[in-house]
Amino acid sequence: MGKVLTYEEALSVTKTLTAQFAKNAPERDIAGGTPKKERDLIRQSGLLTLFIPKEFGGSGVSWVQLLDVIYNIARVDSSLAHLYAFHNYQLATVRLYGAKEQWSALFKGTVENGWFWGNALNQIRKDVIAQKQADGSYIWNGTKNFATGATDSDYLTITGSEDTFEGKTLVAAIPTKRDGVTINSDWDNIGQRQTDSGTLVFKNVKVLRDEVLSDPGPLSTPFSTARSLIGQSVFSNIFLGIAQGAYEEAVKYVREKESKPWLSSLAPSAQKDPYLLRHIGELYVKLESAKLLTQRVNTLLDELWQKGEKLTARERGEFAVEAAVARIAATQNGLDVTSRIFEILGSRATTKALGFDRFWRNLRTQTLHDPIDYKILAVGDFVLNNDVPSPTFYS
Amino acid sequence: MGKVLTYEEALSVTKTLTAQFAKNAPERDIAGGTPKKERDLIRQSGLLTLFIPKEFGGSGVSWVQLLDVIYNIARVDSSLAHLYAFHNYQLATVRLYGAKEQWSALFKGTVENGWFWGNALNQIRKDVIAQKQADGSYIWNGTKNFATGATDSDYLTITGSEDTFEGKTLVAAIPTKRDGVTINSDWDNIGQRQTDSGTLVFKNVKVLRDEVLSDPGPLSTPFSTARSLIGQSVFSNIFLGIAQGAYEEAVKYVREKESKPWLSSLAPSAQKDPYLLRHIGELYVKLESAKLLTQRVNTLLDELWQKGEKLTARERGEFAVEAAVARIAATQNGLDVTSRIFEILGSRATTKALGFDRFWRNLRTQTLHDPIDYKILAVGDFVLNNDVPSPTFYS
Amino acid sequence: MGKVLTYEEALSVTKTLTAQFAKNAPERDIAGGTPKKERDLIRQSGLLTLFIPKEFGGSGVSWVQLLDVIYNIARVDSSLAHLYAFHNYQLATVRLYGAKEQWSALFKGTVENGWFWGNALNQIRKDVIAQKQADGSYIWNGTKNFATGATDSDYLTITGSEDTFEGKTLVAAIPTKRDGVTINSDWDNIGQRQTDSGTLVFKNVKVLRDEVLSDPGPLSTPFSTARSLIGQSVFSNIFLGIAQGAYEEAVKYVREKESKPWLSSLAPSAQKDPYLLRHIGELYVKLESAKLLTQRVNTLLDELWQKGEKLTARERGEFAVEAAVARIAATQNGLDVTSRIFEILGSRATTKALGFDRFWRNLRTQTLHDPIDYKILAVGDFVLNNDVPSPTFYS
Amino acid sequence: MGKVLTYEEALSVTKTLTAQFAKNAPERDIAGGTPKKERDLIRQSGLLTLFIPKEFGGSGVSWVQLLDVIYNIARVDSSLAHLYAFHNYQLATVRLYGAKEQWSALFKGTVENGWFWGNALNQIRKDVIAQKQADGSYIWNGTKNFATGATDSDYLTITGSEDTFEGKTLVAAIPTKRDGVTINSDWDNIGQRQTDSGTLVFKNVKVLRDEVLSDPGPLSTPFSTARSLIGQSVFSNIFLGIAQGAYEEAVKYVREKESKPWLSSLAPSAQKDPYLLRHIGELYVKLESAKLLTQRVNTLLDELWQKGEKLTARERGEFAVEAAVARIAATQNGLDVTSRIFEILGSRATTKALGFDRFWRNLRTQTLHDPIDYKILAVGDFVLNNDVPSPTFYS
Repeated sequence: MGKVLTYEEALSVTKTLTAQFAKNAPERDIAGGTPKKERDLIRQSGLLTLFIPKEFGGSGVSWVQLLDVIYNIARVDSSLAHLYAFHNYQLATVRLYGAKEQWSALFKGTVENGWFWGNALNQIRKDVIAQKQADGSYIWNGTKNFATGATDSDYLTITGSEDTFEGKTLVAAIPTKRDGVTINSDWDNIGQRQTDSGTLVFKNVKVLRDEVLSDPGPLSTPFSTARSLIGQSVFSNIFLGIAQGAYEEAVKYVREKESKPWLSSLAPSAQKDPYLLRHIGELYVKLESAKLLTQRVNTLLDELWQKGEKLTARERGEFAVEAAVARIAATQNGLDVTSRIFEILGSRATTKALGFDRFWRNLRTQTLHDPIDYKILAVGDFVLNNDVPSPTFYS
Repeated sequence: MGKVLTYEEALSVTKTLTAQFAKNAPERDIAGGTPKKERDLIRQSGLLTLFIPKEFGGSGVSWVQLLDVIYNIARVDSSLAHLYAFHNYQLATVRLYGAKEQWSALFKGTVENGWFWGNALNQIRKDVIAQKQADGSYIWNGTKNFATGATDSDYLTITGSEDTFEGKTLVAAIPTKRDGVTINSDWDNIGQRQTDSGTLVFKNVKVLRDEVLSDPGPLSTPFSTARSLIGQSVFSNIFLGIAQGAYEEAVKYVREKESKPWLSSLAPSAQKDPYLLRHIGELYVKLESAKLLTQRVNTLLDELWQKGEKLTARERGEFAVEAAVARIAATQNGLDVTSRIFEILGSRATTKALGFDRFWRNLRTQTLHDPIDYKILAVGDFVLNNDVPSPTFYS
Repeated sequence: MGKVLTYEEALSVTKTLTAQFAKNAPERDIAGGTPKKERDLIRQSGLLTLFIPKEFGGSGVSWVQLLDVIYNIARVDSSLAHLYAFHNYQLATVRLYGAKEQWSALFKGTVENGWFWGNALNQIRKDVIAQKQADGSYIWNGTKNFATGATDSDYLTITGSEDTFEGKTLVAAIPTKRDGVTINSDWDNIGQRQTDSGTLVFKNVKVLRDEVLSDPGPLSTPFSTARSLIGQSVFSNIFLGIAQGAYEEAVKYVREKESKPWLSSLAPSAQKDPYLLRHIGELYVKLESAKLLTQRVNTLLDELWQKGEKLTARERGEFAVEAAVARIAATQNGLDVTSRIFEILGSRATTKALGFDRFWRNLRTQTLHDPIDYKILAVGDFVLNNDVPSPTFYS
Repeated sequence: MGKVLTYEEALSVTKTLTAQFAKNAPERDIAGGTPKKERDLIRQSGLLTLFIPKEFGGSGVSWVQLLDVIYNIARVDSSLAHLYAFHNYQLATVRLYGAKEQWSALFKGTVENGWFWGNALNQIRKDVIAQKQADGSYIWNGTKNFATGATDSDYLTITGSEDTFEGKTLVAAIPTKRDGVTINSDWDNIGQRQTDSGTLVFKNVKVLRDEVLSDPGPLSTPFSTARSLIGQSVFSNIFLGIAQGAYEEAVKYVREKESKPWLSSLAPSAQKDPYLLRHIGELYVKLESAKLLTQRVNTLLDELWQKGEKLTARERGEFAVEAAVARIAATQNGLDVTSRIFEILGSRATTKALGFDRFWRNLRTQTLHDPIDYKILAVGDFVLNNDVPSPTFYS
């Protein structure tokens, strides 16, 4: 059983970890693959039980606090932030989709065994069949993609369609080492390169009746449908962290860079160039905008979470709109920041070892999780027609 | 002596007033000139003493509260918001530039006599001479432009250069009806058309020694230099109000408009058109961004104000940066909102009587008060070089 | 019978006329109503027969040449450009929808009598019934809106639905003074204020069989459907003219403005301010982009026109895409230019008499003719799916 | 002696080569290093003598023609386009800076020996000393960075400061295998990864008197200063090629992608989604804008080149402004295109093997050659103040 951190300790631990992660983040981005050493540092840090309520042995922090930790990891390494965020996202999934006995046991198991959670839960393609057996158990077969964090995980949330591809969506929680589960090392993408978001194959995987999270189950009660909203909130914080990290690192580079003002600049020093300062100023406004919108949603998420099963469909829908607003700003402003930092960095900063392009690649990759265009539509639809988004795995 | 409102009453009064102002705002925009009737409604409402501390007979509201009232007036009529804001701005000027006996007396006078304040304080052009007399009084001569709210005012803050155009900047507070003061009705501009921001002529105007606000005087202590920061905060709230009002009115129009989807639209109704919803969604994100940044500054302004003369130059400078951030967002996002509403309104909404162009004209006019480009520079200079803006009448 | 100008003479005449129009364009924008004096100057100038082929007594200029004249008028006065463009647009309508005997006679009539054409042809709302009579003639009843240029016109193109609102769309050409035609002076909109684009009432208006343009008639052959493409091309040239005029006038104002660089500017003079030059440079790139795209379409229009009835549906469709590209650029870039000129103009330029807001109001109004969003869609649909827009009155 | 191609043959050869380059462009981007095989294919293709006048044995194509070849290579592989462009750029350098005997001989040598030119000409840092010897020759010592194309080259243009770092800038042409020249394999940057733009070390490199190009020499006559303008034109064409290539490849991917419309899309198929088509349409307009501006400059470059030594400083300056306009559009629009293609590609397209990020990385890297902000300033300065840019190695 690991450490149980107070939130203050968690902040301090995060600071230490991120300082360490920052050292070789560009190198690890180039290498890709599983950040085994860093995953183990997270395991040892006590951060894995941060979100688990105190009564089950965890730190019991709020969403505001947890998301702040995720944001701070994202500032230096968004792959690690993603992995850590998704660990917590699966814990929340278990809490939302499962019966109390299920999540109580899984929370305790996580505290006692230090489980690091991963997922095989992407259901946009219905590619896995869960064949119901006479005893109520299921046999899982098929291949999931985008199985973020499955590699080197201890526990998994998984999904499949009951009996036929068009069947009911089932979600279950099983140990990663369950017979028949094969995780491929086939994630080699342009960004979020150490998230191991590749494919996972189920070959006659036995899933027990009480491993299936069906009370209330996915897309059932308003509260259970809050899962995707947590996902959206997590993304906004990671996006914001990426953009903030890019900006801070770029500003630091420019501050320390020895160079003269451009030939036709009126400025007394490179650091006082009016166009340089314009870029830095404009990007700051964009970052602060996205930050305040994201922080507002973080606070609202705690309120929503407190409501539990009392949460109404309408409240859930209104939160979805606010979450969309934050995600839109974090996406659009973040993409602008991560590309425009180069205007201030200059050509020498394109050296691969400096890794300044990884911010854009990471953000560009992760922001495609689901189309931002339909988030914008949802906001407009709410404002004009007072309609809230229908609950799905993405909204 | 007028009513002393509680803040709750003030909100209610504001609601009533704005409902009334909204009725003929487009007409009055076309007419221009002095909104005499509306000024008198403000006089009678009790709102003129909202900001004056309770010990002097006012409501003693905070900046957050006052700026919220200003914002709400701006949503329906930014000229009236400007006039009311500038009334309060002059009261703050008196407080910041004058000695305690001066502002105590002027606060009390405002409460007792229901003074509506205007100003002749634009010192970007040094165009008025204040000739010092043997007895310490001054004779003021010259013409000020942009004398917002001077028409129909009861009391004025004025400025002039001591003895020569290059002399020390003096600020004083005098009754508007003082001999030699002539206010021209020459404000006929494309926006903010009922702010009477025209010229004011001083012809041998006698200003007494103790009407001059020279303890500590303009641009002296860090706290006194907070005046321009209040101005910047006031602007952000008005800009935001204009944009919010434009958006709300446009959305309402579109919601109620009877029309079919465009020929090649896939939508089942005009109100479900994906491009229409995209515009509405994107503009909402812009508005919310500017709103949160502005509200943050409003809160910080109360903190700054509480510090009084303990305010340090650095604290003042850091506030200036935050105020700039809000103003940049309110300006850029607001201009986009007030022009893009037409994409959702359609061609029939260009009827002059509907007045949908007044939002852009008002915002376009008032955002030129001082160049936003140099606000962006200031933000960049702070982030990169840790330099805060020098205190001026504009920063 | 009026003058027949060579193209060189037409350019010279245009130069003289625009110099005159420019003098009181801001005043006339404020006044609105019918620019009777200017309409008569156009009548006397010989420009009304510029587009009519030489064999019918006109100048026989190309579309490139005609559109250049329209663009140059729009640079100083987009209402007059609109009126003059629509005169030519109706001549093209007659040519495209009518039989040779019809357009020959109408072309000659225009040359001989100096007719200035207007229209009542907006069929987005089906609001006029043309009841067929036993003798093949029609009785027209109903009210058309957006009847640009009908006031003070000599000849009109009109539209109505045959027998019922859902009936076939008929287009005819009749003298404006025909019994039963009433043109209301009810155009009072935020832009294009002297285009008289108000309502026109038909009360039992007799339209003869051979006044109806039904061979080939509207939306029939590919060539006849080129009418809306001419409309789109005309718009792009007017939009571009508005933006170019705004820019030129703003640059001239700034060049001549006496002012100092802003307080925190590093520039030796106001005219060398780096942010000022940035705005001017960026807007120039936008204008030149829109200009080259528009000129390309102008050239293509002549090619299309030469093809006549040999024009295929596919060629027509590909031209529609190119026309959309130009219109998108002219719209988006133009709106940016007409709003951003104020960043360089500064607050003193908001004086109403200077009229710098009219460019944005004019462009904002006219760009709403039909939604630019669906033009963008059409371009994307062509690139991705190789589908060309369906011919309508708008595409 | 190699083939001498007609322009038609050159187009055909380019088509064959680019088809081949396209096959492994993503792989080679990942690999970086020297594209030896592809360089040799270019050598064998006959393209190296395309620009050399016929009288010296080359194809004698125009700038319009040469830049079109460069653009077409850039559409599939911007590193190879860069290398090929810089080969020609050095030939132009020799022509502009050298005496007729020098460039005649070097042109002939290139034809006869099939030289592939590279450069060590970046003089923004004065880091190489050319020590004058008694016999008029020089000894070159120091390290140049950004020596694009030096690796595997046969001939080089080089630069150094005469005697001291502040001395006169000398440019010379020498065989790459000259004693003392060491080319490092140290270019490992985020983009343009196969351009070998690393460092080149001179250690006591002997440069003969008649290898120095000093008649007229760099930054001397208006015509000689046209070199940087050729560089700017080359860049615009490469930037445009990158953006066009990104767009074409993305559209092709989307066209062939099997996927359903997004959950809340109204479209009957993924390829008819209104937001997808919007992105594609908007980016097309941006590409076409940049294309027309770039093509205009290409045409003007031929005119400028024809003027030769008759070119005036003013003509040269006006061309510099037009070249800046094209480069601004190609940069800004291109960056938008290469980042926004992902909105249409979706998350599965982030697979590294597809290489869709290389367009943004290539463009992001090469657009930093010199700051676009100062190009925008130059355009504004011309429009407002009628001032043309001063000739430098960058403007």
